[in-house]
Formats: sequence, structure tokens, C-alpha cells
Amino acid sequence: MNFTMVSYIIGWILQIEAAFLLLPAIVGFCYGEGNKSFVFIVTALASFLLGLIIKLKKPKTHDLYTREGFATVAIGWIAMSIVGAVPFFATGEIPNFVDALFESVSGFTTTGGSILNDVEALSHACVFWRSFTHWIGGMGVFVFIMAIFPIMGGYSINLMRAESTGPAVGKLVPRVQKTALILYALYLGLTIIGCVVYIICGMNFFEAVTTIFGTVGTGGYGVLNTSITSYNPAIQWAITIFMILSGINYSVYFCLIRRQFKDAFSISEVKWYLGIILVSTAIIAFDIRGLYAPADSIRHAAFQVGSIITTTGFSTADFDLWPMLSKSVLVLLMFCGACSGSTGGGMKISRWLIMAKTIRKELSTMIHPRQVKKIHMDGHVVEHETVRATNVYLASYFFIMLISVVLISVDNLDFTTNFTGVVAMLNNIGPGLGLVGPTGNFSIFGTFSKIVLIFDMLAGRLELFPMLIILNPACWKKY
Amino acid sequence: MNFTMVSYIIGWILQIEAAFLLLPAIVGFCYGEGNKSFVFIVTALASFLLGLIIKLKKPKTHDLYTREGFATVAIGWIAMSIVGAVPFFATGEIPNFVDALFESVSGFTTTGGSILNDVEALSHACVFWRSFTHWIGGMGVFVFIMAIFPIMGGYSINLMRAESTGPAVGKLVPRVQKTALILYALYLGLTIIGCVVYIICGMNFFEAVTTIFGTVGTGGYGVLNTSITSYNPAIQWAITIFMILSGINYSVYFCLIRRQFKDAFSISEVKWYLGIILVSTAIIAFDIRGLYAPADSIRHAAFQVGSIITTTGFSTADFDLWPMLSKSVLVLLMFCGACSGSTGGGMKISRWLIMAKTIRKELSTMIHPRQVKKIHMDGHVVEHETVRATNVYLASYFFIMLISVVLISVDNLDFTTNFTGVVAMLNNIGPGLGLVGPTGNFSIFGTFSKIVLIFDMLAGRLELFPMLIILNPACWKKY
Repeated sequence: MNFTMVSYIIGWILQIEAAFLLLPAIVGFCYGEGNKSFVFIVTALASFLLGLIIKLKKPKTHDLYTREGFATVAIGWIAMSIVGAVPFFATGEIPNFVDALFESVSGFTTTGGSILNDVEALSHACVFWRSFTHWIGGMGVFVFIMAIFPIMGGYSINLMRAESTGPAVGKLVPRVQKTALILYALYLGLTIIGCVVYIICGMNFFEAVTTIFGTVGTGGYGVLNTSITSYNPAIQWAITIFMILSGINYSVYFCLIRRQFKDAFSISEVKWYLGIILVSTAIIAFDIRGLYAPADSIRHAAFQVGSIITTTGFSTADFDLWPMLSKSVLVLLMFCGACSGSTGGGMKISRWLIMAKTIRKELSTMIHPRQVKKIHMDGHVVEHETVRATNVYLASYFFIMLISVVLISVDNLDFTTNFTGVVAMLNNIGPGLGLVGPTGNFSIFGTFSKIVLIFDMLAGRLELFPMLIILNPACWKKY
Repeated sequence: MNFTMVSYIIGWILQIEAAFLLLPAIVGFCYGEGNKSFVFIVTALASFLLGLIIKLKKPKTHDLYTREGFATVAIGWIAMSIVGAVPFFATGEIPNFVDALFESVSGFTTTGGSILNDVEALSHACVFWRSFTHWIGGMGVFVFIMAIFPIMGGYSINLMRAESTGPAVGKLVPRVQKTALILYALYLGLTIIGCVVYIICGMNFFEAVTTIFGTVGTGGYGVLNTSITSYNPAIQWAITIFMILSGINYSVYFCLIRRQFKDAFSISEVKWYLGIILVSTAIIAFDIRGLYAPADSIRHAAFQVGSIITTTGFSTADFDLWPMLSKSVLVLLMFCGACSGSTGGGMKISRWLIMAKTIRKELSTMIHPRQVKKIHMDGHVVEHETVRATNVYLASYFFIMLISVVLISVDNLDFTTNFTGVVAMLNNIGPGLGLVGPTGNFSIFGTFSKIVLIFDMLAGRLELFPMLIILNPACWKKY
């Protein structure tokens, strides 16, 4: 392990986070919350200095192999989450540090599951920071660094592989740095357009900014205790659309901007994504037809489907009260996830497609044993490497899920709460069913369970391997 | 597809089943249930004649490739289940045919989940047949045919692959027929010893015979409405031991008989199996210590652990009332399953070991990219073929599980019931949690859901691929 290089990059992360922490400080000043701003400024300073000290020892080589890339991202995310938790704790708004860490991890990983019973009691600075962590975590802080500072040379692809979503890294352009820059430009563009649309639909500026952070980051932290329930239908539809847009593979937008319309609309993952949304919305709208007026049924169904499949986690209705068919479809969507190369979490549709194609191929080989068949997607052969990684991902996912359900059952809550809670954390969604449904929150769990769920959120956001690799002692050996 | 060969073997299955159906007829006569015996005899005659007619067209070639092997086993099991359901229906003891089919499938697949509210109301003939289906299904009817009649020549390995349990077929001796014969001899031996032990512990003859069928077949149908609850502790311990013995890879017994003690005790799957049982029993016994006297805690814990991990499904206590940690451990064991090459269902410990080793290998490759590593088990390299089949199995399992949960949610029962119900069916266990817990049964589901669960039971017993292959239109094409 090239320890100096790893810590050097962690130093960068802390300094970038220091810069980010100044934004909520400014928000605090605007709303006359000077004492809160002070906390954010001190945290920023401390984070900056810590980063400076860590960076004093310059790395001799810039080598960053898979192992270092994955470990750096995992440690970087843990460090970032701990620093991000400090303001919640130091302002006294979340008096327990594990709770503050839970809230921070839930923010950065774009999970959006909260331990707060009363969000509206928070200061504007903290609410802003909470939502802003979604925005930072959505596209990824390492991708951000790569976009702005070309520090890692040719090896940065290993950082990107660890932080980006989906079974394979799709570089939009040959150079990694430029890819990162384009991704952030698209991300920023979507954020600004969404914010303007929300304001036009009737949100105030503060609500629009924080809500769009939660939308494009597919996070789910809201400003009100009722999530999105109390906003008007126009806003709810606008959020639905921007959630769904945020779950689409960003290469679609890249193709659109380059006027490669044929390429943009031929990606099979995106077609499946939109198809699944349509079918699920139809099933649920029909299933809940007795509970609402027709137009409301469709709106609530589309909103919740968009919210869960993109792993955002906003809600306009307490879907825990819906019939079981609707709830089961939502649980299925929890496992489904959004497109790879988007800010959405979960298993990703491309992984499901690869798995479905693998099953089909296996059955086909049983029927025609002499046939040699490869798995294709969008006209390309899916590399054996990718298929293997997808399989290992599923196995790891299954292990982590089942063991987490057992571990958090020490709190003696019901099975539905435990199971859907773990699924909601591991897929970075936010709400589950039962006690962690849209009207509940994660404060019901004990400290031990919260730590398990914190691990699950990080494992889910980083797609398992980075968090598993740092648990492996061999990872820490010197070359 | 070599249709004549397939139907020829199905003909055999029907004739063998006709012979099996005479046993409950005899039981009926012994207990003065002549009218019930008559139904069994008529069913046996009809089944025999149907088999005869089907077999009239002799196959030109005896070719039986993977496709035919898998399809034959799937169709054979469906045919066998339908015929097996007839007596339940025709005696009027289960007046709905889908219910009768559910009971029959649950029997043959050694699931043991019932739709009956009152088992004690059944005639002796039907109770015997119900338990006897466990015994037939446990080791497999195709394996039985292979052991007795060498009809299929060299191709019978494809039938054995489809019907035996575990990721790879372990032939005990080079010849398939002899392997089948040895397996049935061991099976019969275990049955007779168990039956004698049960009688010594205090069971009457009828109870001992039916209960040992449910034990060695890892089925779970009992004679009493309270399952095993009302028997004395000695019987409960005896059943615990025979359940655990039935979940062990039969090659252990083969080694023991051949006095290859070192080989017998070096199989890592078996060590893990016994280790998991020990650890789970300890956790649960500790967790339920407040509910029972110390000796009872250990007995109930060991019994339920043995019952669930071997996928038997007997119960001595209503574990649905236990604390959540115990329940979660049991749910974890539902996914775990017994050893491959045993009569137990579920995913099998060897599959989990292969998956765990695959994950470790993947992480190791990330850390040392130039390393070329193979997966080893018990000193042998695990073939790439087996690893791939295990991965495809897990993916198929996940698909079938999630889709089944959504499909049966149309009945609007709670999530815990639906989820654990599907898991209990797919792993051929029997009871789940909630409404399908040890004191509940599957009569609460509607006809559509029952059909879904029937599919799940068959898919689980035949380890997915045979049932998936017959759903594939390409399977039905002529050469």
C-alpha cells in the first residue's frame, strides 16, 4: 500500500470539504444564525489545517493501483462523513455524535434516512448543510477533485472506478479528467434548471435550492417534516420529473448535447428504466385507485415510483398504508435501482440486465451445449470481467444484507422494519416500510444498529468492494 | 428434444408411483378405512395404465442430453405431484384440487407447508401418503428408478444432475446406477434406525414411521396439529439428531461404511454445517433463556435450528413468539440450507462456501492484480463451470424470490408473511414467520398465490434450472 499517496489524497478531500463547509456558514449569516455560522467556520478551518498537515509528507510515487484507489475512496468517504457530522454535533442540534454521524453518512451517501424527529427545528445553516451533502455525495467528491485538480495523473481511473456507479466505468471521453469535468458540468446544469423550475412552480428560494440538492443527488432530505406532502401538485410533478431525470445514465445527456440523438435513445438500460417506471406507476395507480381521486392516484404513484427507483426517498404520501401489492412493487424497485452512471444508488438496472442475460445464456447452453455465446449489451460484448464482478457483487450484497438484518435485530423491532430498513440503507433509498416508513425515522434503532446501518450506507454508495477491501488485512500490507 | 424418450421415462415414473400408492392402501385396510383404500387402489391402477399407454411408443434412441434430462425431471415431478394429489381430492379429505395439489407438491418437494387446519381429521391412509411423499421426494424418484432399473444407460447422469442437490453432482462410485443404489441403501438404513429409535423413545408405530419419513426426507409433515410440541423431550432430541444427520452429505456415510474415517471428517461443508448449527443454537438458547427453563431453551433452540437449517420444518415451539434476534437467525438459516448431496433443500452450504471464496478471490485479485488464483474446496479446484452455475443459481434465486413476493402480495397479507412464506417455499422448509409461522398454515393464500408457491416449491426442490428450462420455448423445439 502506498500510504503516503493515500493520505495525500485524503488531505485534499479534507481541504475541499473545508471549502464546502463555508457555504452553510454563509447561509447562516443570511438568516441571522451567527453562532451556527461560527461553528461551520471553525469546522472548516480545522478540516483545512488537518488536510494541510496530512499533505506535508509528499508522496514519492503517484502510483495508485486498484487496491489504493478503492481504499482511498473508502477512507476518504469515512473521513468526509466524520468531518461532516461535526457541525450537527457542535451546534448542539444533534446532541449524540453517532446520530450526527448517521445523519452525515446518510447525507453524503444520498440515502436520506434521518434520525431526526423534527427537521423543522433545525437552523437554516444545518438544513442547508444536510441537503448540500447530498449534492456533494451524489456525483462524488473524488470525481469533483479530478474535475478541478489534475492531481493523480493516469491512475485516477481507479478512484473513479471506486466512486462511480454501475458495474463498469463508462468514460465519456478518453481522458478521465475531462470526463469528470463534463459530468460535473451536466450535474450543475441539471441542478440550476431544476432549481429554477421549482421556484416557478411555487417554492421559495431556500426550499428550491435544498430540495434540488436532494433531487439531483437522489438523496431525499427535505426541509419539512412531511417531506414533499404539503407542496402543491405542480411542485410534486416537477420533483417527480427531476428525480427520474437524475436516475438516467449521464451519458444520455452527453450524447444529447453532442446531438448524437440515435446513441442517446438506444441505450437499453435507459429504455428498461423508463419502461419499469411506467409499468410500476400503472400497477400502483390502479392498486391505490380506491384511496385517492384518479389524478392524485397517478401523481402519488408516479412520485413514489420515481422516488424509490432512483433511490431518492422523498414522499408525497404514507405508502406504508397502501395495499400490499403496491408496497411489494416498491420493495422490488428498492432492489432495482436506477441506471449506472447516474447519481442514483441501488443495484442498478444494468446489473439486473447482465444477470438476466447470464441466466438466459446458461439456459441456452443447456439446450444447445455446443453453442458458444457471449453476452451482448447495446451492441458490445460484455467483458467476462464485468460479468464476474456483477456476480461477486450480488453474492456480497446478499451476504451483507442478511448479516445486517440479523445484527440489527438485537433491537427487537419487527421483521418488516429490519428487513426493509437494511434494504433502504444498503440501496441508499431512505424510507422503508413499518417503523422506518415515510412517517417514521431511524432514531428507533440503538447505537450498535446505527453503526451497522452506517456501514451499509457507505457500502451501498461505494458499491461494496471499497468497504470490503479495507476490512481485508492483506490490503494494509506494505509492498 | 427427444420427446419419445422423455415420455417413456415419465411412463416409468407413473408406474413406480402406482406401486408406491399401494402402501397407503394397505395402511387404510389395517385401520379399517376400506373406502379410502379403494381410492388409493383406483388411483394406482389409473396411474399404472396411463404409464403403460405412454410407454407403448418405444424410443428409437436413448439419447438424453442435459436439456432432456432437466425437462424430464421437471415434467416428471409435475406429473407425479398431480397423481399424488388425486387421493387427497378423491377421498374428499381436501375438497379443493389446487389445495390437494399444494399438499402433494409440498410433500414430494419435502417442503412440509400445509393448507390443512386440522391434520388430525385426516384418515390414516391419507396421513401415511402425505408423509410417504416426503420419503419418495427426499432422495428423489429418478434416483430410485436409476437404482432399481438400469433403463437409461450412460445418459442417466443428466437425470441425476437435475434431481440431486448441490452445485455439482458427486458420484460416490464411477457408475451412476451403483451410486443411486448406495444412496437409497443408506437412506433406507437411516430410515429404519430412526424409526426404531423413535419407538424406543416412546412413539407408537404409526407415528414413528410417518415421522421418520418427514425426518429423513427433511419434509416436516407431522401427524398432530401441534407438530412435535406434544412429544416428550427424548423424542424431541431424537428427532433433532436425525434431522441433523439427514442434512449431512451422504458421502460422509459412504466413507464411514468404507472405514475411510479421515475422508469422512475432512469435508469442509460438513464442518461448516455442524459449526453453524452449534453457533446458532447457542445464540438462540441464550436469546430465549427468559422464556423457558435452561434445559428447555437448549432443546427448543437445537430443535428449531436443526429443523430450519435442514429445511425440515418440524417445530416444538411457536418460534414466531421468540425475540427478533432468534427469529432473524432462523431466517438466515432458511437461506443457508443443508449440505449438498443430502435430502435437505435450500441453497446449500457448499454454494455459500463457493460464493464466499469467490468474494475473497475477487478482493485478493484487487489487492494483488498479477496473482492468478483458483478456488479450492477440500483440496480440489472448484471447476469454473461450477462457480458459474452457482452464480447463475443465485441470480435466478433472487429473481424468482422477489417476483414471487410481488405476485403473492395480491392477497394483501403483511410483508413478513409474504416474504418468509416465499423463502420457506423456495427453500422447501415449511413454516415461515407471521401468518405462516409454526401455528399458521398456507390456507390463507388465494388460488393464484398457491399456484405461485407451488411453482416455487418445485423450483426450489429441483434447484431452479429444470423448472426454468421448461419455461423456455427453445427447449421444446425438435432437433
